[in-house]
Amino acid sequence: MTNKALQRTYEILEGTTNDKVTKAFQFFIIALITVNVIVVIIETEESVLDEYGYLFTPFEIFSVVIFTAEYIGRIIVCKLNPKYQNSKFGVLRFVFTPMMLVDLAAILPFFLPFVVTDTRFIRIIRLLRLFRLFKLARYSDPMQTLGQVFKSKAGDLAVAFFILFIVLIFASSLMYHAEHEAQPAVFSSIPASMWWGIVTLTTIGYGDVYPITIPGKLIAAGVAVIGIAVYAIPTGIMASAFTEELRKKKASTNNTCPHCGKDISHD
Amino acid sequence: MTNKALQRTYEILEGTTNDKVTKAFQFFIIALITVNVIVVIIETEESVLDEYGYLFTPFEIFSVVIFTAEYIGRIIVCKLNPKYQNSKFGVLRFVFTPMMLVDLAAILPFFLPFVVTDTRFIRIIRLLRLFRLFKLARYSDPMQTLGQVFKSKAGDLAVAFFILFIVLIFASSLMYHAEHEAQPAVFSSIPASMWWGIVTLTTIGYGDVYPITIPGKLIAAGVAVIGIAVYAIPTGIMASAFTEELRKKKASTNNTCPHCGKDISHD
Amino acid sequence: MTNKALQRTYEILEGTTNDKVTKAFQFFIIALITVNVIVVIIETEESVLDEYGYLFTPFEIFSVVIFTAEYIGRIIVCKLNPKYQNSKFGVLRFVFTPMMLVDLAAILPFFLPFVVTDTRFIRIIRLLRLFRLFKLARYSDPMQTLGQVFKSKAGDLAVAFFILFIVLIFASSLMYHAEHEAQPAVFSSIPASMWWGIVTLTTIGYGDVYPITIPGKLIAAGVAVIGIAVYAIPTGIMASAFTEELRKKKASTNNTCPHCGKDISHD
Amino acid sequence: MTNKALQRTYEILEGTTNDKVTKAFQFFIIALITVNVIVVIIETEESVLDEYGYLFTPFEIFSVVIFTAEYIGRIIVCKLNPKYQNSKFGVLRFVFTPMMLVDLAAILPFFLPFVVTDTRFIRIIRLLRLFRLFKLARYSDPMQTLGQVFKSKAGDLAVAFFILFIVLIFASSLMYHAEHEAQPAVFSSIPASMWWGIVTLTTIGYGDVYPITIPGKLIAAGVAVIGIAVYAIPTGIMASAFTEELRKKKASTNNTCPHCGKDISHD
Repeated sequence: MTNKALQRTYEILEGTTNDKVTKAFQFFIIALITVNVIVVIIETEESVLDEYGYLFTPFEIFSVVIFTAEYIGRIIVCKLNPKYQNSKFGVLRFVFTPMMLVDLAAILPFFLPFVVTDTRFIRIIRLLRLFRLFKLARYSDPMQTLGQVFKSKAGDLAVAFFILFIVLIFASSLMYHAEHEAQPAVFSSIPASMWWGIVTLTTIGYGDVYPITIPGKLIAAGVAVIGIAVYAIPTGIMASAFTEELRKKKASTNNTCPHCGKDISHD
Repeated sequence: MTNKALQRTYEILEGTTNDKVTKAFQFFIIALITVNVIVVIIETEESVLDEYGYLFTPFEIFSVVIFTAEYIGRIIVCKLNPKYQNSKFGVLRFVFTPMMLVDLAAILPFFLPFVVTDTRFIRIIRLLRLFRLFKLARYSDPMQTLGQVFKSKAGDLAVAFFILFIVLIFASSLMYHAEHEAQPAVFSSIPASMWWGIVTLTTIGYGDVYPITIPGKLIAAGVAVIGIAVYAIPTGIMASAFTEELRKKKASTNNTCPHCGKDISHD
Repeated sequence: MTNKALQRTYEILEGTTNDKVTKAFQFFIIALITVNVIVVIIETEESVLDEYGYLFTPFEIFSVVIFTAEYIGRIIVCKLNPKYQNSKFGVLRFVFTPMMLVDLAAILPFFLPFVVTDTRFIRIIRLLRLFRLFKLARYSDPMQTLGQVFKSKAGDLAVAFFILFIVLIFASSLMYHAEHEAQPAVFSSIPASMWWGIVTLTTIGYGDVYPITIPGKLIAAGVAVIGIAVYAIPTGIMASAFTEELRKKKASTNNTCPHCGKDISHD
Repeated sequence: MTNKALQRTYEILEGTTNDKVTKAFQFFIIALITVNVIVVIIETEESVLDEYGYLFTPFEIFSVVIFTAEYIGRIIVCKLNPKYQNSKFGVLRFVFTPMMLVDLAAILPFFLPFVVTDTRFIRIIRLLRLFRLFKLARYSDPMQTLGQVFKSKAGDLAVAFFILFIVLIFASSLMYHAEHEAQPAVFSSIPASMWWGIVTLTTIGYGDVYPITIPGKLIAAGVAVIGIAVYAIPTGIMASAFTEELRKKKASTNNTCPHCGKDISHD
């Protein structure tokens, strides 16, 4: 490939320009991903499989060819990216970026069965096709926003989840000791009681496990009132971080002074 | 109709004045809508239908006559509205405003059965009578506030709902693969698993679907803790936008300085 | 009673002074109310009724005597209260204050059975004994705080509850039409479907009613995601108003400048 | 022990220095606690007990020896702590600090069975082993943060929980009177109805208890909408206090001006 063709491929694949070809390529990839996700979902519906099943294999081959070409293309042109240009192991570092791993996971389910023969492993591998969903992240503002929220609040969320885990262990252990004798099948062990803990502390309350003894109900009442308040902490962190992130984005797209028209973005 | 009569009709229908006739008309329409909604609700109660059923048809005819007269009246006088006066297709644009479409939906269930004969279609058409509820929006501050909240936060909510959808697809697909074999009837396909996803992520937890295998419970636990935090995002957006909207309203109705009495509204 | 005795009674009953007798009286009344509430609760437990039932009637008579004396005493001394002193119908206005109505409701269950003989009515009257709980409000800061929150946000909450009601009507009507045929016993009418609506929109999800048809599940999914966001509005209003009210209280007890020591409370 | 050895032990146990030995000791204790907690949890799983049960007793003895040595060590060196140095009952006060009580609770389950012989008591005592979990608090920032949140908002939370309790009593009493006749086994008494109250007001909704009569459903609807708003109060307090606490911590660890490097912490 000539240098010019490489440069053009880089522009189109990484979306550094805004011309029609780039836009058309992005639209095509987004559409292909969306149809792939829809297929992964509806092919589990037996009636759909019976009627349209013969279309799924050709479509899978078509998709994998495109996605593989895209994947290889991205690796070839990555040396044009200033971030990976000067480094010795630039290509290697590029291959291990999250988005490139997602791209790999999106095509692996097709190629691995040629290498591996263990059927159970192949079934789990097929699950990887779902990761095509995350290929959308490259083009989707909302998913990037969520990603940034998780990133910017990673520390706070880790703290909150550690606390949730402590509360869960404590609540489930207490409940195990209170209910094990009355319901040995349901509260068979502390790990089993943790299922009750999760279902209760998140207020889902399916109704498959609940205490029936007086001490069990008293513990559940205490756990519910205090524990739910603790479980609301990550919820609160997420909601406020998300609103904040959206506000920041709006601010950064509109960062000129309304009076003098100069750039005032400093965040 | 004379010009003066037209002008008076416009004033009464659009509530541009505050005189007694206008107020009486508004009160009458609000009362008629309220009774209509109550009738739509209680006529589904068999005991009520048996005893008072003979009253419902005359009341329906009476209501439709009034609502139709109101609808036609609004169209006739709309040319007096400065917004639709000078435009060529003013009347057409007026007819397609949201409130006028609601008004049309409120009377259609009566007239359509004369035109359409497909019984299944007629049954769905009757459901449209429920839209009389939204005729109230013209006179109800709370409903207008909610409308403004949805409008002002439409972008943020769209982002949040897109993320919810991604989380839902991912969670439901994982759960389908974990539980399909153990509960083929309940987790029959990914779309069917989405019912589990909605019921879990909103923390409703009816108890009609829940995982029973260890991997399923582990996935549900992870989904519950992380997913619920994500599902709380639109809830947080709505609650804060609503509070903000109410504060704005109060500020705009009370925007004079308590000391000098001058207008101090700058929001 | 001499004027001085009247004045002293007024001081003790209304707690305008802080002396030992007033404090002892308040402690005694609070203790009596608390024990009364406990008795109302535990006398429904059959094993308690069997063993200690013979104590409940004397205790009821003792309590009613005290509460009646307190009630009459308050009326007698109310003319010493500047608020009700100069008005013509001062006593009447005093008798109809919320706290005096609570006091009346607290003793009525004892006296009414002497007048009324309809047994069903008497059973409901006995329920009024529970209102003794609210006699605590006179001495309890938290209950007063909650009262102030409801009062200060009454307008906002009314708006929010009106919207909840509109959402509930709309969701329940849709669900009725979707599920009535498949589950005629559960979704027998729109009012019956409202039970589903409440259980779903509040995310309680007992599991006694839920949709089983595809359209029903789709409606439920939409209602759940959007409706729950709407149902979170009053929750948000309450939580923030409560926190605000607590902050105000703290500010008003600590309203001097940390530097000059002067009063800086202007809120 | 020489004074120098004492001083060194104090440094290591209380973590006043940052040298390698101190860090290694802390890492070892944290690891030992974590493994202990895991053992307490998984030894309730029968399959684990069958296979690895023979390891648990030696590990328990090993752990208790270490924890006892640590406990006694802390008491011995506590006189070097300035806080407990000059006081007459310094050691006694130190022994009754929360963390030292946790340390005692962590070793008691091993020693008490030698003194007490009542088997039921011993079973409850074994539960105390779970308190080893809280030994982590000494080294865990998140747990300390949660502790500070509970401490700083103790007053507000007490107010909120008192209100929850009032709402719970009122709701459960009403429901008892509405449902007792229709479901005498489920709503057998007001204390029994409180289980319904907790499960409903926290929106868990297991589905084991719910109203079936019209008045019961009406009461539940009212309780749900208003009560849940009240139950959201402590949740709101916790979430905001936690976020605030985390922000404070960050501020205090990064309190120098990014330009001049001077200390700018004024909080």
